[in-house]
Amino acid sequence: MTTTLRLGLAGLGTVGTGLLDLLASHTGLIEERTGVSVAVVAVSARDRKRDRGGHDISRYEWFGDPVAMAASETIDVFVELMGGEGDPAKAAVEAALKAGKPVVTANKALLAHHGTAFARLADAAGVALNFEAAVAGGIPIVKTLRESLAGNQVRQVFGILNGTCNYILTKMADEGHDFADVLAEAQALGYAEADPTFDIGGFDTAHKLALITSLAFGTEVDLESIYIEGIEHITLADMRNAANLGYTIKLLGVSVATADGIEQRVHPTLVPVGSQIADVDGVFNAVAVKGDFAGELILEGKGAGAHPTASSVLSDIADIARGTRVSTFGVPAAKLKPYSRARMRAHEGGYYVALELFDRSGEVAAVARTLSEEGISIESIVQRAPVSTGGGTTGKRRTAPFILISHDTLESAMRGALERIEEEGHAASKPRMIRIERL
Amino acid sequence: MTTTLRLGLAGLGTVGTGLLDLLASHTGLIEERTGVSVAVVAVSARDRKRDRGGHDISRYEWFGDPVAMAASETIDVFVELMGGEGDPAKAAVEAALKAGKPVVTANKALLAHHGTAFARLADAAGVALNFEAAVAGGIPIVKTLRESLAGNQVRQVFGILNGTCNYILTKMADEGHDFADVLAEAQALGYAEADPTFDIGGFDTAHKLALITSLAFGTEVDLESIYIEGIEHITLADMRNAANLGYTIKLLGVSVATADGIEQRVHPTLVPVGSQIADVDGVFNAVAVKGDFAGELILEGKGAGAHPTASSVLSDIADIARGTRVSTFGVPAAKLKPYSRARMRAHEGGYYVALELFDRSGEVAAVARTLSEEGISIESIVQRAPVSTGGGTTGKRRTAPFILISHDTLESAMRGALERIEEEGHAASKPRMIRIERL
Repeated sequence: MTTTLRLGLAGLGTVGTGLLDLLASHTGLIEERTGVSVAVVAVSARDRKRDRGGHDISRYEWFGDPVAMAASETIDVFVELMGGEGDPAKAAVEAALKAGKPVVTANKALLAHHGTAFARLADAAGVALNFEAAVAGGIPIVKTLRESLAGNQVRQVFGILNGTCNYILTKMADEGHDFADVLAEAQALGYAEADPTFDIGGFDTAHKLALITSLAFGTEVDLESIYIEGIEHITLADMRNAANLGYTIKLLGVSVATADGIEQRVHPTLVPVGSQIADVDGVFNAVAVKGDFAGELILEGKGAGAHPTASSVLSDIADIARGTRVSTFGVPAAKLKPYSRARMRAHEGGYYVALELFDRSGEVAAVARTLSEEGISIESIVQRAPVSTGGGTTGKRRTAPFILISHDTLESAMRGALERIEEEGHAASKPRMIRIERL
Repeated sequence: MTTTLRLGLAGLGTVGTGLLDLLASHTGLIEERTGVSVAVVAVSARDRKRDRGGHDISRYEWFGDPVAMAASETIDVFVELMGGEGDPAKAAVEAALKAGKPVVTANKALLAHHGTAFARLADAAGVALNFEAAVAGGIPIVKTLRESLAGNQVRQVFGILNGTCNYILTKMADEGHDFADVLAEAQALGYAEADPTFDIGGFDTAHKLALITSLAFGTEVDLESIYIEGIEHITLADMRNAANLGYTIKLLGVSVATADGIEQRVHPTLVPVGSQIADVDGVFNAVAVKGDFAGELILEGKGAGAHPTASSVLSDIADIARGTRVSTFGVPAAKLKPYSRARMRAHEGGYYVALELFDRSGEVAAVARTLSEEGISIESIVQRAPVSTGGGTTGKRRTAPFILISHDTLESAMRGALERIEEEGHAASKPRMIRIERL
């Protein structure tokens, strides 16, 4: 006789339907692997009548209210696939944990905002709060950080965590199309939302990074402290200049332990061509972790999609079926350290700088002098032929694109130098910089 | 009050000492993460007096006989880091399991030969037999296959599993040195053994592949069925020809589920430049898994070394500390399917073929006709200028290197064609072929 693990499934969108697909395909396999029969017994969704990819949901108990389902006696595990940082997801997860039911969720926004509080509730109830699917889709990064690296102090973790951005940047690099054109194409194909801000502005990446940071460093979740820059200002010219200098541009989420705290940042980044992270193309995600004993680990896979995400949800359910419980963020919630934010300006690394210098004698020398005075040394320079731009009331002007790659320097020094270059009137437009990770 | 998990550590070589380093660095961290104090209480090694990297082993109970330690009441977990497929490792692991003690081992040879039997013993005792460190050093591939992919039918898994071979092939490709020269250099640096056969002959890779196959497909471990070719016949010319055609050469272990069984093979393989697996350089390892729901996952990291391997050993110990137990090969031993070997000749893929054709009119045409008659179509050809070779009793002869890349074809067809080319006397030496994986 086999025991049954009864799932209450809230949310029957892409991922919820993907989970029904998975359970329909692999019931026997899962029972063999976990020793337990895993079955959905109750569901909740906004619309009871909508088609669910051919799945007959009438055989499950229906709950109009997911909060009621979460606390119901008829389920053993609450599977939250509704999304959203507020209610009903928040109230439902709270209700499940308070009722002593393990929770599996794919909801990054919910945990990025309320992760620490929920970890405390899970500990109080002594139940699992698993969220493999909330970060990087089908990639087992949560389990790797939470379990496989148990004997490591993590030094650094970074990743490509948003498939929409990576698709856009890959297309720009490979096909030489402008940001706006590729975005429109991605929207037409359903790879980007009608309002793409959440993805291209870096906010989705930041949600995932907040969870990764807590897992890696044992700190309370702190979404608010993340420095965020999106990809909307990356031009095709940047992409081409980077390529000429041996780099490609990726949107990275980076979290590093420094002497004065943890630095979390999301921004476009130049990564060297030929590095593993540079080769992560299209909708793939990748996460690189550096542990003091394991050394560098890189995990790459599908970062989104119904089936990869469902695979991660099932992995979390299988752990519960086997009776495994690991603390939400790797250590008991009571031991999570208050997040200590490193001063952003302490970040040290190389920079790509794009200047639009006036085509006048002495400008290049002045810029070089300013950089040198700020202690910035230059690795390589690309200067292009002057072009005429502008017009209208400002009149036409001749400017020359001037691109440089710096050696490692403090961000404060680079910001200072660029402010001076701007103030001293050498550049026709605001200087732009993109960080470099030499990985 | 914290409970202590008492480890008995057999083997104080590189990995054993690495584990002592790790425990010395991270005792507090591990206790915080697992809720249990993890401590070595007993050790066994060949030589009691040898220096162990500064660790004072006199504070542990000493066992001259690891088998006695394995069954001793003074330990909770037996950690086997001695290596070797026979006794004392075999007898000690058996003794521990029969005494109802969980076992953690880094011993691939032991499990490749006795894995199924040991899985049965572990099940009978209801204890964990964990072996993350036995495959690909610090990379969490065992946990990924055993737990993260619980909801997937794996279709295929392949990897770069031997750092010595990958170091040699990377050096040949990057520096243009001959196999023999690079091997000698690797031996001088300690990256290759004095007798390198176990590594370069593909046997080490085969041991690891046997374990991966069982985890991926739920089959009994079957080392004997693996087709094995090493890298010792790869020439610098092959490396250069491959590069010209857009490929690099890696030693892969490949395991694929086919309609008529499972195909396990270890051989040098051409992989496309720019693919993730082609960029895995030096002593790094990587494993790629294709699951029917997760899609493709690639894990890359340090495949050997004291600390990365110790990191995996600790991960296994942490699971035991938390009370997690997963079946040795992902399903109970009683449910492991008998391994069903696919006919090797059914393998379908592309091939790199190197011929040394006589410099006579009509030879190329004859070869092309033979290939065509065997149903093999050609993707690309490189023919080089004729050179004079040979001498002595055979006399000088003029031959031309003739390299081709075929489209996907059955291995039986390719073998047939090459046998005909040899028999018909077109080639001055035995035709050679290397498989291509287009990944």
